Amino acid sequence: MNDPETLESEGLTEDTVSDDFIADLESGIEEWVVDALDQGDTERVRGLVDDLHYTDIADLLERVSEDKRAHLVEVIRDEFDAEILPDLDDAVRDEVIELLGIEGVAAAMVELDSDDAVEVLEELGEDDQKRVLDAIPESDRTLLEEGLAYPDDSAGRLMQRELVTVPTFWSIGDTIDFMRHNADSEDNPLPDQFYVIYVVDPFHRPVGKVALDKILRTRRPVKLEDVMETDLKIVPATADQEDVAFLFRQRDLVSAPVVDDSGRLVGAITIDDIVDVIDEEHEEDIMRMGGVREHDLYDAVIDTARSRFSWLVINLLTAILASIVIGLFDATIEEVVALAVLMPIVASMGGNAGTQTLTVAVRSIAMKELTATNASRLIGKELMVGVFNGIVFAILAGGVAWGWFDSPVLGVVIGLAMIVNMIVAGVAGTAIPIILDRLDIDPAIASGVFLTTITDVVGFFVFLGLAALILL
Amino acid sequence: MNDPETLESEGLTEDTVSDDFIADLESGIEEWVVDALDQGDTERVRGLVDDLHYTDIADLLERVSEDKRAHLVEVIRDEFDAEILPDLDDAVRDEVIELLGIEGVAAAMVELDSDDAVEVLEELGEDDQKRVLDAIPESDRTLLEEGLAYPDDSAGRLMQRELVTVPTFWSIGDTIDFMRHNADSEDNPLPDQFYVIYVVDPFHRPVGKVALDKILRTRRPVKLEDVMETDLKIVPATADQEDVAFLFRQRDLVSAPVVDDSGRLVGAITIDDIVDVIDEEHEEDIMRMGGVREHDLYDAVIDTARSRFSWLVINLLTAILASIVIGLFDATIEEVVALAVLMPIVASMGGNAGTQTLTVAVRSIAMKELTATNASRLIGKELMVGVFNGIVFAILAGGVAWGWFDSPVLGVVIGLAMIVNMIVAGVAGTAIPIILDRLDIDPAIASGVFLTTITDVVGFFVFLGLAALILL
Repeated sequence: MNDPETLESEGLTEDTVSDDFIADLESGIEEWVVDALDQGDTERVRGLVDDLHYTDIADLLERVSEDKRAHLVEVIRDEFDAEILPDLDDAVRDEVIELLGIEGVAAAMVELDSDDAVEVLEELGEDDQKRVLDAIPESDRTLLEEGLAYPDDSAGRLMQRELVTVPTFWSIGDTIDFMRHNADSEDNPLPDQFYVIYVVDPFHRPVGKVALDKILRTRRPVKLEDVMETDLKIVPATADQEDVAFLFRQRDLVSAPVVDDSGRLVGAITIDDIVDVIDEEHEEDIMRMGGVREHDLYDAVIDTARSRFSWLVINLLTAILASIVIGLFDATIEEVVALAVLMPIVASMGGNAGTQTLTVAVRSIAMKELTATNASRLIGKELMVGVFNGIVFAILAGGVAWGWFDSPVLGVVIGLAMIVNMIVAGVAGTAIPIILDRLDIDPAIASGVFLTTITDVVGFFVFLGLAALILL
Repeated sequence: MNDPETLESEGLTEDTVSDDFIADLESGIEEWVVDALDQGDTERVRGLVDDLHYTDIADLLERVSEDKRAHLVEVIRDEFDAEILPDLDDAVRDEVIELLGIEGVAAAMVELDSDDAVEVLEELGEDDQKRVLDAIPESDRTLLEEGLAYPDDSAGRLMQRELVTVPTFWSIGDTIDFMRHNADSEDNPLPDQFYVIYVVDPFHRPVGKVALDKILRTRRPVKLEDVMETDLKIVPATADQEDVAFLFRQRDLVSAPVVDDSGRLVGAITIDDIVDVIDEEHEEDIMRMGGVREHDLYDAVIDTARSRFSWLVINLLTAILASIVIGLFDATIEEVVALAVLMPIVASMGGNAGTQTLTVAVRSIAMKELTATNASRLIGKELMVGVFNGIVFAILAGGVAWGWFDSPVLGVVIGLAMIVNMIVAGVAGTAIPIILDRLDIDPAIASGVFLTTITDVVGFFVFLGLAALILL
């Protein structure tokens, strides 16, 4: 915050103090930077950006338009903080990397922790990745190449390679001396930040961990063996990051050791890495349920249109299927045009009731709460919820139809169709994601199409079919 | 895992080892417990549960049916681990608390950390809360009452009260001695777990923090002042937990000090608390977008039906509105019944394209990526995406209509309506959540209704209106 007068003149006084702790960018800096860029006042741009945290600079780069972004990167190129890169959205990062050039990116990679550097490198095209790696000194390169050798989204990609390991026979005193000694060492430096140290056996397999507070509250002569936690949850380097995230949440873990195939300790995952995984997972779930392949806020128009296309094609096909069902009853509709007016109500209510059920089921599967033990009980429960709400909305919709078209029979027809469709919606909303999950298909991505296809088809078919039977 | 033979006989050999690190409950224990309960073999139940982590016991309690749950609580009552309670879903926790009784719950509250205890207490009814508090010894009670005095979902509720604070003038050596001395002290015990210590001024205002690894790698005579981080993000106790979570993610924080109105340090929030907040927030978003008030997997049928009712009523009203629009054109439909067959296609495509846009916008607002700076640019982008995909799907749907009903004009009508509705969907899908957010209404909860109402009404109106103009 380097324009205190401006801040105050904009009314950012005591009232907003409680929000202020999160909002560095919102206080006007964003517009000031854009103004300074427009005026070509590069000194002021540098001054303003200099005071910002790297995460705020990343946000700034994401928010400005494409030409301003290029301009901004040019201005801050010399002081470009490497930490900005892992923090950028993929589409924006691609642009910034192109602007920085191979040499600039390689320099940034050397500055970053290995896990952050791998995060940036894994998103590059094969050619660019190779060129950046070639521009990195060999000692750093090996670590990064090892990291990239692990599968996408695996624990190996996520873990920090730098960690503190000590043998079982050491005492607390030995450990503290070791850390003090290595604090400034060039050969065997300590990680930037760590919360636990790992105790390993002669084969470098993890046998225990000791939290730093434990070390600080224990007297020097005590052996590590006597104070270490031995109930370790050991993560294989090839484990899927979602499983690791689940483990952390399930066990309230703060860190976990990662081992290779032979059980040797190769790295550690800490809870701050997990926060990013959880956010990614959430984003994936919410995007998939909304029928979007990925978060495309910063993508170009044509990329966005293309990536959303396939979902819309599937939806077109299911809509045509629903139309075919309606087409079966065109003679009935010609006779009683009120049916055409009312039919979307049944389909829409089924779709919405089904989506409610589906949302709970998909979320429960993601949180591993919906299992073989309780699946059939939950389908039974949703069936009952469908019966209840089906009856209630049968009465409401039936009343509306009766009043509107002055036809009690039409009210009965829509009421019956409503009950059937809401029961079907409840059962399908739970059963579809469970079945997809058993077939190893992500329920978030595909459940919605199946569900609305079923509720549309059943809704139109039952309503128009009953009408054909009863009214004609 | 105390039945190794059974595990092996069930084929849980090397292949599954890599999954095994997350799955204690999935290995069959769940069914064994249920079997043992059925057979009344309480010894075996106790033996099985004894080996489980408290989080697994919580899961087990959630998954079994209501009568088994009561039975299970009875069996493990004497060894009931207090940590199970904060880990339970609300509906299940209510049941378990009733089974444990006031005395049992009060005993558990004393065992828990203050933030966990407050988490359990805040969900109790007023009467129960008072009765539990009355059964707790005064020293513990005060801390809990103070915690409960902070607003729901505030930093004050989330923070840990127990923390390590030291004055600025201390050295590293003083600090280590202090911690060793207080490790076993009754009067001034250290927290169960901590990662940083806070440095405070004489008014107990936080002026810096020192990570434990920093303490361990620094020599004894060095003053805290010289090594502490002073660039603190200080959280007011009344801050909303979502803002705090955003701050942690934005700044890659691991812990943050919490202060009261006068700036005194009253607690600290650590990243593991934030993981729960992120999960909660995400659950809220996904539930709201799905039209469900809350995650109701474990709720009773009637509670679930009731809580979903209001959303369905709103949906019924919007469906009726769409029907009214169709009703305006009943004469047209009577003339050309193909319109009734085709009209859901236009509405459905608009709804889906709009939901795609909406999903990205709602997510971007939640992540504070969509701001005043880029809002109009994004609406413009979605308009263009609508134009692109509108034209593509106009051709596809127009072709289908032409072929099906052998009427090129019908194809033109549906094509034009498709273009209009998909543009409207793109613009509305971005503009609605932005407007709701400015009005301080959660876009996740209300955007969907507005959007589908608009795409239905526009879809039916434009399609049937154009048909009335062109075809008749």
